[in-house]
Amino acid sequence: MSLTVSPLAPAQFPDMPALDGVRLATAAAGIRYVGRTDVLLALFEPGTSVAGVFTQSKCPSAPVDWCRSHLKAGEAGALVVNSGNANAFTGRNGRQSTKLTAQIAARAAGCRPAQVFLASTGVIGEPLDAAKFGTVMDALVADAAPGKWEAAARAIMTTDTFPKGAASIVRLGSTPVIICGIAKGAGMIAPDMATMLSFVFTDAPISPRVLQKLLKEAVVDTFNAVTIDGDTSTSDTLLAFATGAAAARGAAKITKTSDPRLPAFGKAFHAVLANLAEQVARDGEGARKLIEVVVEGAISKGSARKIALSIANSPLVKTAIAGEDANWGRVVMAVGKAGEPADRDRLSIWFGGIRVAHKGERDPNYDEAAVSRAMKKPEIALKVALGLGRGRDRVLTCDLTKEYVAINGDYRS
Amino acid sequence: MSLTVSPLAPAQFPDMPALDGVRLATAAAGIRYVGRTDVLLALFEPGTSVAGVFTQSKCPSAPVDWCRSHLKAGEAGALVVNSGNANAFTGRNGRQSTKLTAQIAARAAGCRPAQVFLASTGVIGEPLDAAKFGTVMDALVADAAPGKWEAAARAIMTTDTFPKGAASIVRLGSTPVIICGIAKGAGMIAPDMATMLSFVFTDAPISPRVLQKLLKEAVVDTFNAVTIDGDTSTSDTLLAFATGAAAARGAAKITKTSDPRLPAFGKAFHAVLANLAEQVARDGEGARKLIEVVVEGAISKGSARKIALSIANSPLVKTAIAGEDANWGRVVMAVGKAGEPADRDRLSIWFGGIRVAHKGERDPNYDEAAVSRAMKKPEIALKVALGLGRGRDRVLTCDLTKEYVAINGDYRS
Repeated sequence: MSLTVSPLAPAQFPDMPALDGVRLATAAAGIRYVGRTDVLLALFEPGTSVAGVFTQSKCPSAPVDWCRSHLKAGEAGALVVNSGNANAFTGRNGRQSTKLTAQIAARAAGCRPAQVFLASTGVIGEPLDAAKFGTVMDALVADAAPGKWEAAARAIMTTDTFPKGAASIVRLGSTPVIICGIAKGAGMIAPDMATMLSFVFTDAPISPRVLQKLLKEAVVDTFNAVTIDGDTSTSDTLLAFATGAAAARGAAKITKTSDPRLPAFGKAFHAVLANLAEQVARDGEGARKLIEVVVEGAISKGSARKIALSIANSPLVKTAIAGEDANWGRVVMAVGKAGEPADRDRLSIWFGGIRVAHKGERDPNYDEAAVSRAMKKPEIALKVALGLGRGRDRVLTCDLTKEYVAINGDYRS
Repeated sequence: MSLTVSPLAPAQFPDMPALDGVRLATAAAGIRYVGRTDVLLALFEPGTSVAGVFTQSKCPSAPVDWCRSHLKAGEAGALVVNSGNANAFTGRNGRQSTKLTAQIAARAAGCRPAQVFLASTGVIGEPLDAAKFGTVMDALVADAAPGKWEAAARAIMTTDTFPKGAASIVRLGSTPVIICGIAKGAGMIAPDMATMLSFVFTDAPISPRVLQKLLKEAVVDTFNAVTIDGDTSTSDTLLAFATGAAAARGAAKITKTSDPRLPAFGKAFHAVLANLAEQVARDGEGARKLIEVVVEGAISKGSARKIALSIANSPLVKTAIAGEDANWGRVVMAVGKAGEPADRDRLSIWFGGIRVAHKGERDPNYDEAAVSRAMKKPEIALKVALGLGRGRDRVLTCDLTKEYVAINGDYRS
């Protein structure tokens, strides 16, 4: 936890409404941190649908394995999240710890262990003592109440400098429903302290199958389009829970992807995820600049994505922007190394809306002073036009500063 | 150019013998730098074979395009290298500049323009004025003499903190032949200042076809197994020249890859490239630690290479090592994100020869103090055993320090 809040942080935590069917509680279980909460419990009404997407890592954490194996049944009774220990690379001990934690929570919450979903963030390789959950579980269940979003967002923070939340109200037919989400980020992973976790909740009645499809689609251009350092966590977890409580207010359950009410809901759901994902980029470790990379004119969206990620993950592009330098030569380099079709002689590049390179050469007309002014702003738009096709994509990242190196390299030295 | 020599630099430039058939000269053409040499000319005896390998970038520099298109004929008369300007992303102007430079050098050297090979390193996107070569070319030809290796290595430096050279003497049958190489590195690319260039020379008589095969094989585990920041230059160039002068001392020409004299020569050739490649890693921008990443037990060498590069390019692994922290959790993360087959529960990890993680868990027996001592050394061996197969590979890199960010981010701020 940093003492200095990111200069890119929102002014305040948003107003987020209570949501029928979800009760929240937090506690300080002393897993690693002292003097702060480190456990979040969410309790769900029976019949809550659950969907999830997880890290692509080939070495996932024990909680990721646990969630994956219990997602199929599609019903959630409780969610337990801890910060301070990732329960990753903990072998048999880690598997036992997830099982025990689920049993403890199930007993207290009155559901089956298979209906308890888990996420952990923090140190890799340290055994996670499930007994720590045991000591706080009864108090958590007793305290659980709707609407405690900010406390929930704070309990899951690691190197985050601010709690992250977003909410939206949208009509399902004529019934208003609520979508609330929280997230934590920082480095895409810093195993001693971080990972990316997000939990999204709605009172809309949606079947697990439709919720999963919605989540899978929404993640593509939100959380999957954010990168801090190109390092992928063992623990990245995004879970969505739909309590269905709005059914009591007249909203019929969505069970088909062809439901005509789904597009409007999906749009609001996407917006909540996009908001949270942007907050993750705004809280990148050591970040001073939010960078939007747009690639257009690629042969496909997939090709544009690869090029955008190559730019967004390039240490040389990120250090240049930290230095407020519109160094488009490094952008050319990053386009070239992406391995996707690109023609130097058709390439154009913009910084802050100002074209600095055009058709394979420095733009002779650009105003160096105007570019300098644009580079001093906290938000930098970087656009590349390839001139080959209609493929377009957008990725968010942040700059690479000495503070990033300090956060990730200094803490033991 | 840094005022501070890398702490990982060799004690001195090696003794390198003159080589029959190669004459060298350097000059200060004022391309960008003041008060130092920035042009290297190498003149070759008629009949010199040439081979080359180049950047995989989809946006290569004009000199890379030039070399590629003239390599087929296999004969070199001269090599012209400049520092200070990469002649990359310079469009039509860049192509004209290479053509003009080759014409100027060909006229002075008495060969055809197509026999002139070119390499440029420095700023991307700035037009390179070929007339600058014209003003120094006659003096260069007049000055050219054998054995000026250190001056040659210095003229091609950019952010390098020391000149890089390596030499070997080996018998071709009963005739001793010489292999001499020079290189420049720093960041794999920093378009305002750097790129990777290397030139290797021998008096052995070898056909262009055999030389090309030799080069292609030797580069795999030498220059292609070094990474500084994962950023690929538009200009990376490795050229090999074989003058054949040793034929006059009785060495028959090697024209077949089955030549029984080739393995011994190839081994020495490989050693020169490996030596130069290691010097590039030792001079990584801001480097304080040389890191050797060994991956074994992978399903194939290719799979081991991908995992080793994922580790070697991970900002979190590199910052941890900068902080002298044996953070094997980040190594697990980098293994996991490589996308190659890996089984968490079979994975073991060593730092400095000490096993810190074994079969999916922290090694309960390792001595934290011994690991701490190992991490303080300037050379760090990091080994990962996957326990899946017999695939093994080795990659060299360096740590990621605040100095890297300063070198690449501060110069305009």
